[in-house]
Amino acid sequence: MDNTLLMLPGPVNVAPNVLAAMSKDIVNHRGDEFGVIYNETCERMSKVFKTNNQSYILTSSGTGAMEAAISNIAGPKDKILSVVGGKFGERFAEIAKTHGIDVEELAVEWGTAVSPEAVKVALEADENIKAVSVVHNETSTGVAAPIEEIGKVMKNYDALYIVDTVSSLGGDYVNVDKFGIDVCVTGSQKCLAAPPGLAAITLSDDAWKEVEKNDAKTYYFNMKKYRDSGNKDPAQTPYTPSVSLIYGLKEALNDIEKEGLDNRVARHHLNAKASRSAVKALGLELFAKESCASSTVTAVKMPEGLSDKDVRGTMLNKYQIQLAGGQDHLKGNIFRIGHMGVVNYKELAMTFTALGMTLKECGKDIEPGAGVTALADTFLEG
Amino acid sequence: MDNTLLMLPGPVNVAPNVLAAMSKDIVNHRGDEFGVIYNETCERMSKVFKTNNQSYILTSSGTGAMEAAISNIAGPKDKILSVVGGKFGERFAEIAKTHGIDVEELAVEWGTAVSPEAVKVALEADENIKAVSVVHNETSTGVAAPIEEIGKVMKNYDALYIVDTVSSLGGDYVNVDKFGIDVCVTGSQKCLAAPPGLAAITLSDDAWKEVEKNDAKTYYFNMKKYRDSGNKDPAQTPYTPSVSLIYGLKEALNDIEKEGLDNRVARHHLNAKASRSAVKALGLELFAKESCASSTVTAVKMPEGLSDKDVRGTMLNKYQIQLAGGQDHLKGNIFRIGHMGVVNYKELAMTFTALGMTLKECGKDIEPGAGVTALADTFLEG
Repeated sequence: MDNTLLMLPGPVNVAPNVLAAMSKDIVNHRGDEFGVIYNETCERMSKVFKTNNQSYILTSSGTGAMEAAISNIAGPKDKILSVVGGKFGERFAEIAKTHGIDVEELAVEWGTAVSPEAVKVALEADENIKAVSVVHNETSTGVAAPIEEIGKVMKNYDALYIVDTVSSLGGDYVNVDKFGIDVCVTGSQKCLAAPPGLAAITLSDDAWKEVEKNDAKTYYFNMKKYRDSGNKDPAQTPYTPSVSLIYGLKEALNDIEKEGLDNRVARHHLNAKASRSAVKALGLELFAKESCASSTVTAVKMPEGLSDKDVRGTMLNKYQIQLAGGQDHLKGNIFRIGHMGVVNYKELAMTFTALGMTLKECGKDIEPGAGVTALADTFLEG
Repeated sequence: MDNTLLMLPGPVNVAPNVLAAMSKDIVNHRGDEFGVIYNETCERMSKVFKTNNQSYILTSSGTGAMEAAISNIAGPKDKILSVVGGKFGERFAEIAKTHGIDVEELAVEWGTAVSPEAVKVALEADENIKAVSVVHNETSTGVAAPIEEIGKVMKNYDALYIVDTVSSLGGDYVNVDKFGIDVCVTGSQKCLAAPPGLAAITLSDDAWKEVEKNDAKTYYFNMKKYRDSGNKDPAQTPYTPSVSLIYGLKEALNDIEKEGLDNRVARHHLNAKASRSAVKALGLELFAKESCASSTVTAVKMPEGLSDKDVRGTMLNKYQIQLAGGQDHLKGNIFRIGHMGVVNYKELAMTFTALGMTLKECGKDIEPGAGVTALADTFLEG
C-alpha cells in the first residue's frame, strides 16, 4: 500500500525532502530557533498569498482556518453572504450559522461557478451584509470561482471579502492584495504539497478593524492572540504548534520558491487541461463546465453502468492509484482526479494509462491508450 | 543547537523511532489504511486514559481539546466551577467565559493544590453548577491536584467532572473510569513523548448526554462530528487530520505499552523525587509544596540575586540544556525543570551537573556536585 499514488484533491503525495524534514528534532516553540523558523514560514506564506499583510500558521485543518476567518469577523448581530455551490461553500455557511451569524446563501448549481454579477445583485439588495464568503476552488465539484472578478465587484462595497483558497493556493492564480481579499485561508495538504495538519490565514487592515470590534466566541482560533504572539520576540504561536509539520511546510514552501510560483500555477493549469482532454478521449464526460473548470482537480461523471467500486476500486486495488469519489449527493455519480502539488505529466501518465485499462476491463468499448495519447498531445502543445 | 536537551514541561525530547515514523508516506485519511491506524491510535489512547470509553484525536494543541471539553458540555445558560491555581486553570476559566458560560472560580494559591473539601463546599453551595474543571498537573507551578479524591467528592453530585491531563497523562496516575472523570483531555507533546500538534479527548456516557443537549458554538471542535466520523467505516476524523503526527503518536503509544504504563508513571515519580532532592542539595528552594509536587515538572525559586539570564541563559548557551522560565507573575521568580516523557536518570544527571556548575559560576557558594550526588542517592534508593 505504501506505493499507492494519491491522485486526490488532498492529501497529496509529499516529496521525500519534505517528509524527511519532519524527522528533525523538536525544538522549544517558545525559543529563538523556532521563532526564526516560524517567521520565515509565515513570510513565505505571505509571498504565496501575494500579500504584504502578515500570515499566521494554525495547527488545524483548513476547516479550522475557515472557522477562524468567519468567527473573528462576525457575530450574532451580523449578516454574511455565503456563496454555496459545493461542499465547502456549504461548510462556510454552516460555520457562520454555528456562530449565530445571519447567513444569506447565494446558491450556485453544483458544477457551475458563481457570477460576479450575482454577488453584485446580492450586495445591492442588502446593505447590511458585513462580509461575503467565497470558496475559490470547490474540490467537491471541480469548479474554480472567478475570485479576481468578484474582487472587482467587492471594491465598490464595504463588505469584507473572505476567500477559501484551501485547494487552490499554489495551484491557481491567487493574488490577495490585487484581488482585494480581506481574509484568505488555505491548508497545507493541497497545492502546497506539505503534510496535512496545518492551515494558514492572512487578514487585511480592514479585516483587523472588524476583528478588533468583534468579540470572537472562539478561544483556540482567536486571531488577536495569534497576532500578539506573532509580535513577541521570539515570534511564536499562542498555543503549542505542530513543530514537525512546520518544518515540513517550510521545506515545501522552499520548493515552491525554487520552482517559481507562476511556473507552478502554469504547471497546474496544464495538468488540468491535459486531464480534461484525456477524460474526453476516453469517452468520459466532465462534470464541471470547462469555462470554470478547476486547475487542481478534475471531476468526471461516472460512466453509465459503472460504480465507484468498478472504477475507483479497480484503480486502487489493481493499479495502486487512489482517486476520490463524489461527496454527498454526488457520491457514486462522479469521481475526481486530483492533479495538485507535485503532480506533473508522469503521475498523469500513470493515472490515465490505468484508467484506460480499467474502463476496458469494465467492459467499455474504448481504446485504452486514447486518454494518455491525448494527454501527451496536450503536454506537447503546452 | 540541534543537540540542545529539552528539559521543559513540554515539548519534550522525542525518541528517534517516533521522529522517523513521521517521515512515512502520507495516506488518504478517508481510506482503509488510515482507518486502521486511527482506530488503533484511539484505542491505545483509551488504554492510557484507562477508560472503556472511546477516545478521539484532535489536530490541535491541548488548548483546543480544553475548548472542545468546555464548549461541547456547556453554553451561555450554564454555570461551571473552575479551579484556578495556575495558568492552565485560568485558561479553562477563560475558555468558558469566551463561550458565554457563567464561571465561578475556585481560587487556589499558586504553588498549592486545591482541596477536595473546597470543591465539595462549592458544590454544596450551588446546585446549578453543571460541571467542574480541574487541571491535574499545573506546569506553571509544578503542582499536581488530587484528582482521585476530587473524583470521590464529585460522585455525590450531578455536575460533570472535566479534567485536563495535558501534562500528566503517561507520567502520573490517571484512571479516567475509576476516578469518575467525565471529560478528560490531553496533549501529545508532554508525557506521551510524541511530537507537538495533537490532542486527545474522551467522554463518558453522562458527558455525551450533555453534548447531545448542548448546541455547541464550535464547528471545528464539535464532538458530535468526531463521534459520527469515528463510527464510519473506515473510521475517520471529520476534518483533515495530521496524518504524520498520528504516525508519530501511534509509535509513541507503542513505546508506552512496551515500557508498561505503571512502570512509566513510577519512573516519572522517581524522576521528580530525585529532582527535588537534587534541587535542595544545591541550596535551592522548591516553589510548590512537596505534598502536592508534580511528578512531571519541578518548579524552583530563582536564587537570590540571580536572573533568568544567569541561570537559564547559562544552562542553554554554555551547557545546551533548555529549562523553562516562570509564566505571568512568576516570570523571573522561578524556573522549571521538566522531567517527562523519555527522561530518566541520564538526562537528569546532565541537567543537575550543569545546574551545579552554573550556580557556582554565578557566584553561589555551593558544592557543584551536590545536586547530582543527591540525585544518584535517590535513584539508588528507588
